[in-house]
Amino acid sequence: MKLKILLSLSILLAAASSQAQDSLAIRKIYDEALVNGQAYDNLHYLCKNIGQRISGSANAQKAVDWSKKLMDSYGFDHVFLQEVMVPHWVRGDKEVAKIIDGSKEIPVPICALGMSVATPKEGVTAQVIEVQSLAELKTLGESAIKGKIVFFNRPFDPRFIETGRAYGAAGDQRFAGPSVAAKYGAVGAIVRSLTEIIDDYPHTGTTMNGDIKIPAAAISTKGANLLSEILKKSPGTKFYFKQNCEQLPDVLSYNVVAELKGSENPNKFITVGGHLDSWDLAEGASDDGTGVMQSLEVLRILKTVGYHPKNSIRAVFFMNEENGDKGGQKYAELAAKNKEEHIAAIETDEGGFTPRGFGFTGLSTAALKGVVQNWKPLLEPYDADKLVAGGGGTDIEPLKTAVPSIVLIGYLPDSQRYFDLHHTAKDVFENVNKRELELGSAAMASLIYLIDQHGF
Amino acid sequence: MKLKILLSLSILLAAASSQAQDSLAIRKIYDEALVNGQAYDNLHYLCKNIGQRISGSANAQKAVDWSKKLMDSYGFDHVFLQEVMVPHWVRGDKEVAKIIDGSKEIPVPICALGMSVATPKEGVTAQVIEVQSLAELKTLGESAIKGKIVFFNRPFDPRFIETGRAYGAAGDQRFAGPSVAAKYGAVGAIVRSLTEIIDDYPHTGTTMNGDIKIPAAAISTKGANLLSEILKKSPGTKFYFKQNCEQLPDVLSYNVVAELKGSENPNKFITVGGHLDSWDLAEGASDDGTGVMQSLEVLRILKTVGYHPKNSIRAVFFMNEENGDKGGQKYAELAAKNKEEHIAAIETDEGGFTPRGFGFTGLSTAALKGVVQNWKPLLEPYDADKLVAGGGGTDIEPLKTAVPSIVLIGYLPDSQRYFDLHHTAKDVFENVNKRELELGSAAMASLIYLIDQHGF
Repeated sequence: MKLKILLSLSILLAAASSQAQDSLAIRKIYDEALVNGQAYDNLHYLCKNIGQRISGSANAQKAVDWSKKLMDSYGFDHVFLQEVMVPHWVRGDKEVAKIIDGSKEIPVPICALGMSVATPKEGVTAQVIEVQSLAELKTLGESAIKGKIVFFNRPFDPRFIETGRAYGAAGDQRFAGPSVAAKYGAVGAIVRSLTEIIDDYPHTGTTMNGDIKIPAAAISTKGANLLSEILKKSPGTKFYFKQNCEQLPDVLSYNVVAELKGSENPNKFITVGGHLDSWDLAEGASDDGTGVMQSLEVLRILKTVGYHPKNSIRAVFFMNEENGDKGGQKYAELAAKNKEEHIAAIETDEGGFTPRGFGFTGLSTAALKGVVQNWKPLLEPYDADKLVAGGGGTDIEPLKTAVPSIVLIGYLPDSQRYFDLHHTAKDVFENVNKRELELGSAAMASLIYLIDQHGF
Repeated sequence: MKLKILLSLSILLAAASSQAQDSLAIRKIYDEALVNGQAYDNLHYLCKNIGQRISGSANAQKAVDWSKKLMDSYGFDHVFLQEVMVPHWVRGDKEVAKIIDGSKEIPVPICALGMSVATPKEGVTAQVIEVQSLAELKTLGESAIKGKIVFFNRPFDPRFIETGRAYGAAGDQRFAGPSVAAKYGAVGAIVRSLTEIIDDYPHTGTTMNGDIKIPAAAISTKGANLLSEILKKSPGTKFYFKQNCEQLPDVLSYNVVAELKGSENPNKFITVGGHLDSWDLAEGASDDGTGVMQSLEVLRILKTVGYHPKNSIRAVFFMNEENGDKGGQKYAELAAKNKEEHIAAIETDEGGFTPRGFGFTGLSTAALKGVVQNWKPLLEPYDADKLVAGGGGTDIEPLKTAVPSIVLIGYLPDSQRYFDLHHTAKDVFENVNKRELELGSAAMASLIYLIDQHGF
């Protein structure tokens, strides 16, 4: 009995000293991020000296070259590229759109949805039919829709606390709406921008083409409200829009990867990543310049504080998240091919806002309970202790099939401002806060430290 | 035994059903805030149609008149003014400052600190002595300081996670620095702006005058870095600045108060408030337009969802928080005089940023534990569940003396962006996010609901 008590006590003491050690290590990580952080300056370079970098573009290649050079400059154990073929969609000239209310023509801000086809050269003009859902198309049927422009106008539901959920609840209109409208004979589709904010900025984003392709564009929320209002008074209102976007042949591009080699398990990996490509309307600052620069910063911090990981740790700049996910697929394919063991992957693609915590997919209830019990107190002083079930990201999702045992983790920054900027001309460096960005890097570096030290 | 079990069970069931009822009530509060919120539009009016409203100014009076009218329009049970005499400090002409490095004169951005005196008409020119702390003044002594301009240049410590702590750690330079420098014979004081951000905006704020008054100004962080750099190379560098701020006679002003009458305890009060006055460099949007508009919104929400409070609930727009605290003192004085019983007071004066939670002062450890146990799960779905010891605010602080049993509560929004804007020309409406503002109102309305229902 005595021995048992002594053993329990020594386990308890060991646990306490391990907690104290972890606590010190995390404080060191945060100090490095907040005192000597480089993510903000790196992001500035990416945004201002390279700028938009849609997959397949010359700018995307510039971003790859610069990223590789930047990683090389930090002296990590290994920096390499992964070849991947990506789509190359181009927007062409600035889109034009008007509401035609009898003899009145009112210009409204639109932008072609990513992967959409062009209108005929002279544009498309047709009567508008407003719907709130895809289901409504079925009810209306071909007779009501044929020859018309379908206007998807279901707004964001403001009652969701996390704005990502409002995005999820409205997103089918952009992603699938145009292709479904095409089936019923629509000649074009206009989708309310996926945001709660009411302003003049249209939000682009991928639309999925079906067998029949019709031109599809996003309209600003102010434009959508105006169109809806006019339609109520004049149901015969027409809409005109013109865009000459184009799908060019696929292009060879790259994921860019930096690695700290594991001292005990070099073939076991913990990945942190975001996507290097962006939409073409601005600088891709919050989507996802912040994510890639935070991921790189995680590695820089761990190396700088002199941490020698047991497992290999990678920062991955994925290519083509926005309109194809080819980079994420390639990373998983190579992981399987090279028989890599992957413990966990964290994705940061929800902006560089103030940290809230992490969402976990692939942990048992008991394992998640353990994570909450042991790690929450360590992250609480940094306000990054929301540890919840569910999470991941588009780029790391394919790893789940390649390595079923992997734990996928979504970094959760505060979500309130993200969809004000997402996929718009407003997604610029000036809308990123330095400290918020740095705190995110530190939170992810801390979690990786804990996973590397203790596993799940 | 059986009876005991049945009783325990019925207590458990009652608790569960009360939790469920609370949960529904809070959901209703959030829905009203997020779907029909009026705080953002009200703040827009205050910022754009009234603007800066420093105590004693005509604009402060305009703000009082409009606030009273706005409160009247909501049909609360009682709306009234509390008379209070406030200081009336005016900035005068735009300040001018230059670093004089031999024959080179380099203009730098400064602004007079609130309550400071003017320079002589021709300005003041003197050699500069840079210090990092007030203690350093003592070490240097009168011989080193006499006839010079003291330059307080201790920066924000970026390692604090909550930026308010960095403000606290650097704030003595602004508040007390100039008066201490005056004692040693300095002819002026220049204080590094209280912020971590490196830019061209000087941050004003109150400085405390001693017996000897010298002109004191804040210099932008970029200006401070430049001055410090030049001083390292040329210790004989001089500084010139000119300001003609002035202290005018005190003015009659007002706290503006709205009240929902308690159905059970009309003489017991729960207060929520912010301050209506602002600094004069911008619109006082985040300091503290957001706070007053959130406080009003709390009452509007509770009234609109049909909640009939047991205790009286007040929204208070305090006057003169920035340079005198006269409104807060008056509110406490009248509370004592009128024998009001005050259960709790919440202050919102840290910006309208995304909610984190609340800090409590005046709760026993056991009572705080109860609050955490019972209310944290209710606030968790709204990411407003950081419930910690310590908190309050300048306006409600005097209530503690007037009503010792009161619980003082500080609303804790995320702190990362506050000191980028605080007391500068950047504190404008455009730097407030609608949803973040609304979530704050809802969090405070929810907490007030819980306090009103259950007490502590």
